[in-house]
Amino acid sequence: MSQVDGLLIDIDGVLSVSWVATAAHLRRHHPGAKCLLLNSGDLSEDMEGIDLVDHAYNGVVDVVVVGGAGLNFTHVELNRAFGHLLDGATFVAMHRNLCWRTASGMELDTGAYVAALEEASGLTPVVHGKPSEDFFATGVAELGLTANRVAMVGGDIENDVLAAQRCGLRGVLVRTGKFRPQALDRASGRPDHVVDSFAEVPELID
Amino acid sequence: MSQVDGLLIDIDGVLSVSWVATAAHLRRHHPGAKCLLLNSGDLSEDMEGIDLVDHAYNGVVDVVVVGGAGLNFTHVELNRAFGHLLDGATFVAMHRNLCWRTASGMELDTGAYVAALEEASGLTPVVHGKPSEDFFATGVAELGLTANRVAMVGGDIENDVLAAQRCGLRGVLVRTGKFRPQALDRASGRPDHVVDSFAEVPELID
Repeated sequence: MSQVDGLLIDIDGVLSVSWVATAAHLRRHHPGAKCLLLNSGDLSEDMEGIDLVDHAYNGVVDVVVVGGAGLNFTHVELNRAFGHLLDGATFVAMHRNLCWRTASGMELDTGAYVAALEEASGLTPVVHGKPSEDFFATGVAELGLTANRVAMVGGDIENDVLAAQRCGLRGVLVRTGKFRPQALDRASGRPDHVVDSFAEVPELID
Repeated sequence: MSQVDGLLIDIDGVLSVSWVATAAHLRRHHPGAKCLLLNSGDLSEDMEGIDLVDHAYNGVVDVVVVGGAGLNFTHVELNRAFGHLLDGATFVAMHRNLCWRTASGMELDTGAYVAALEEASGLTPVVHGKPSEDFFATGVAELGLTANRVAMVGGDIENDVLAAQRCGLRGVLVRTGKFRPQALDRASGRPDHVVDSFAEVPELID
């Protein structure tokens, strides 16, 4: 992997939490919109200037935003989001990662719930994180490089590696984190490189 | 629609609750198996002879069975099912209906959660209810007819109407229940008939 000058590395989810980009998108494309946010965790710092509706809100929702999956992704909340999508709300998703590894094992991530809402509503969301093309373009631009000089290193064959390769980056799959051999076997393409750990990445570069 | 002698009619979910068939499948193909059942509602009558594991069970699960969606489809329970699928459990689903109309509006049904688990695990479940071919064949056999003499009447364009048409039945879409014009517009095919209510069905037959 000579001629690579930059790396995007995802250690299970760090790069995927693209709330800053999602919030910027909402401010630019949906100013003043009533946003229903489905998320686990505190986002108050990133959400400034965005009109989030709370559980008691009973009016029209303009945008449904699906964020990080967790305990508050309940049947009731998913149905609330689903109802607003059927009523015409715009569908935005923070990313489309399907799962991640936690201390208690593999857990479903945002992408699984996006798939559920997508199939039931027939709507395709605007996705801000991986595997959207914008996401990789932003990462490459942040490095001040062109795509062919950057490698994406991650454990998710589809969202990290193959999506990056489609955007002109080199794709390196790491057999750690949420890596599973079956996922590689049935993937829609082949990584440029497969390594056992992040420690092997530097030697690929020179 | 002359020459039709039998009708399968689905009034929002009645035909889709194919627990009897699912339980028979488990007894025949997975005798003695440890089954993790994700379901809302009481199934004790249908589940005789099936070894269901409870929340405290910590061993190997042989079959994950996804039943009727409801409040107990929590993130914790979905992750439990997901973990067992990754560990090699067989994936069985009662049906694949994506949504249904309740007193409080449209609600996500089993199919939406099946889509989430399917995409995240990469596994395709054995599906017992609509839109599986077995389901329609059983219905036609119950009527003592052949498929070309039976019409399926329902509000779900994909699971009721088009799936039945692929099995040789006549397909009649009813604009009630969970019918939505958008679903018809983006469907993968066209119904043989579209009617405004079940009341119009008899006049189609003679």
